[in-house]
Amino acid sequence: MKIYHGNILFSPRLGELTVLPGGYVAVEDGVVRGTYAQLPEPLAHGPIEELGEGLLLPAFNDLHLHAAQLPTVGLGYDGDAGEWFNRYTYPAEQRYSSDLDYAAGVNGELIHSLWENGIMRSVIMCATGPEATQDLMKRLMESGLGACVGKMNSDHEAFGEAQESMPASCEGTRRLIDWARGKSALVRYILSPEFVPAVSEELLDYLGEQAKKEGLPVQSHMSEGEGDLAMVLDRFPREKLYGYVWDRYGLFGQTPTVMAHCSYVTEEELELMARRGVFIAFCPNAIQHIPGDRFLPVRRALDLGVPVGLGSDIGGGHTLNMLQNMASAIQVSKTLCAGRGLSAAEAFYLATKGGGSFFGAVGSFEPGYQFDALVIDDRALVGHGEYTLAERLQRLLYCGDSRHIVRRFCAGREIPDPAKG
Amino acid sequence: MKIYHGNILFSPRLGELTVLPGGYVAVEDGVVRGTYAQLPEPLAHGPIEELGEGLLLPAFNDLHLHAAQLPTVGLGYDGDAGEWFNRYTYPAEQRYSSDLDYAAGVNGELIHSLWENGIMRSVIMCATGPEATQDLMKRLMESGLGACVGKMNSDHEAFGEAQESMPASCEGTRRLIDWARGKSALVRYILSPEFVPAVSEELLDYLGEQAKKEGLPVQSHMSEGEGDLAMVLDRFPREKLYGYVWDRYGLFGQTPTVMAHCSYVTEEELELMARRGVFIAFCPNAIQHIPGDRFLPVRRALDLGVPVGLGSDIGGGHTLNMLQNMASAIQVSKTLCAGRGLSAAEAFYLATKGGGSFFGAVGSFEPGYQFDALVIDDRALVGHGEYTLAERLQRLLYCGDSRHIVRRFCAGREIPDPAKG
Repeated sequence: MKIYHGNILFSPRLGELTVLPGGYVAVEDGVVRGTYAQLPEPLAHGPIEELGEGLLLPAFNDLHLHAAQLPTVGLGYDGDAGEWFNRYTYPAEQRYSSDLDYAAGVNGELIHSLWENGIMRSVIMCATGPEATQDLMKRLMESGLGACVGKMNSDHEAFGEAQESMPASCEGTRRLIDWARGKSALVRYILSPEFVPAVSEELLDYLGEQAKKEGLPVQSHMSEGEGDLAMVLDRFPREKLYGYVWDRYGLFGQTPTVMAHCSYVTEEELELMARRGVFIAFCPNAIQHIPGDRFLPVRRALDLGVPVGLGSDIGGGHTLNMLQNMASAIQVSKTLCAGRGLSAAEAFYLATKGGGSFFGAVGSFEPGYQFDALVIDDRALVGHGEYTLAERLQRLLYCGDSRHIVRRFCAGREIPDPAKG
Repeated sequence: MKIYHGNILFSPRLGELTVLPGGYVAVEDGVVRGTYAQLPEPLAHGPIEELGEGLLLPAFNDLHLHAAQLPTVGLGYDGDAGEWFNRYTYPAEQRYSSDLDYAAGVNGELIHSLWENGIMRSVIMCATGPEATQDLMKRLMESGLGACVGKMNSDHEAFGEAQESMPASCEGTRRLIDWARGKSALVRYILSPEFVPAVSEELLDYLGEQAKKEGLPVQSHMSEGEGDLAMVLDRFPREKLYGYVWDRYGLFGQTPTVMAHCSYVTEEELELMARRGVFIAFCPNAIQHIPGDRFLPVRRALDLGVPVGLGSDIGGGHTLNMLQNMASAIQVSKTLCAGRGLSAAEAFYLATKGGGSFFGAVGSFEPGYQFDALVIDDRALVGHGEYTLAERLQRLLYCGDSRHIVRRFCAGREIPDPAKG
């Protein structure tokens, strides 16, 4: 049993903040046993670790990012999606898949950046190459961070040529599933079809079977733009909605599923996602770089009970700073998304428990939750004036970056800088 | 004569980048004499300062920020403009005006933050108190940074009560003009009516006279929302446009003038601003926190030749990181502003020469320009891959922050950290 003493904030429900100034959290075997304003008698005799005047928050979770695109973050946003993809993204993914030394360097930098930004759990889509994907999983296991990682499956001509053959895609996937099975409680394989237009029916069948047989989670993109939505409905004329195509192949909540973007999602689709518990990765920065004319109706999704978390969408998005992604989520929700904008507390929920729930009991300090936590030193942000803890959280969200994160815990274990590992 | 050798980038015209890998810039008496791909013979014999493998850029300029709002950045964005103003902004401005020790602390922190973020010139609106304003000017003069600083003039009931009397407003302004006259080439007094609704006709008359008599620059807000525009047109029924009201009082380009926001600006108003050289401070982050239904048509303003720079609008905006403000300007221009979005090079122009031109020959490395410059160490951003200098600039803009700025020059002088001064 470990007791931490500090200024505790967490969000157990959308829009709610639990605030315990000078409170206590008890952790046993990496799991939160309880939080307390005053320490109960039976716990008062053990050693207490003082966290000082900073803040203790649940760590952040990133529900959508592309490992191979880290080196091209910031590039190609001036052009259209075709230029972004053909000039920067596709070559970077090809190199990542074919040059393992290079991929290892990118993977190391990615893990350091996740750690630095307080992202203790992430859902990562690699490129098509299985070796680079395996390297990332191995390094993540060594780091102590949690993640769902998958090699991208992409065997069908969509906007460009197919990136791999169907047999190669299945074989690479199979090999990684076998390799990862039982290796780590924190790092899991996730089935990762790129998006319906880039996957053959045979491969969709195969992935659905694997999901069912192995109980594996699924990640993809859905209805990012009008173009991909039209391609899907054209290819599957019997299905009314993009989501029904996934569903037909058993890739829509039959196992834990997260879909990025969902800009053109319908009410019927949101209702199905709510029933099935299909997560949406809301990626506020990506949609502003090469915007479509519609955006995720995030308020409606939340009102209907769809589970929503935040995604950095590196390299469609430009930052792994989840504080900045929270601020952007709020801004975008006020200006581009239909419905009432998000509050700071709501954005904080999305970045913690909202996305964390994809990994199980993660993202909160309620009893039974994994102790994924960040210690924040926000002295530089609160020099002039008196602030409540909720206001300090707002200041951090809008003005903070990795310089303010001084300690990081995942599943109860303090995680050292992976760059120094 | 001083010669610097490094990777030089600057934007002499909107959308154009001048790129000199391993180039030279010659500086004499704080002013750029020329930039060279190869050093001409007459200059080749002096000492050359090597800047290494990083980037040498013109420093950033911030055309709009509120000193007294630094402590409330990030607060009050959940509510409407009234909550933001009444609960946070107004009390912070009152305290800043009445408690000089407190104001001095805020001023010191502001100057450090400007320096840290590579903002060598800024246009700063203080609150109504003249002492706090004078303290900021004095500290800026000591720091070596350039700025136009003014006490806010606000003697008329607008959305809330008047903040000061007309005689007090004039007297405070007068005192600061006299105090600042001739003291510094870099730090100037700027006349700072809050916005037309908050200024009496008598005070507008007085400020117009001062502008003319003293040749002083002017800053204010214009057409930020529908509400203030309606108030102005209602109060001045003879004038068709908000800009004509300013103009009637000699506060619209008769001397250098910058207006923040201009969300509801008309074509006719933009044409007048172009003719008069009235600057717009485009504040991309502020307009997303408590958004109206319209935004500055930034492309149209640029097409018509209106001078435009960027404004952080602290604390309506949330960051002095001008790199982040450039990224936000691009995002907002693509999603919220009418017309074609900004490119990275265009946003870089706005943050350097676009805004710098308000201060004279500032924001470029063309001959005759003040040597305001930043040395960037972007090694952490370019570890994996080969990038052109223009791509490195894009990576910096989207992924960079003050950690990547390692040296800062204003008017030829290297500026040390003001916090350590």
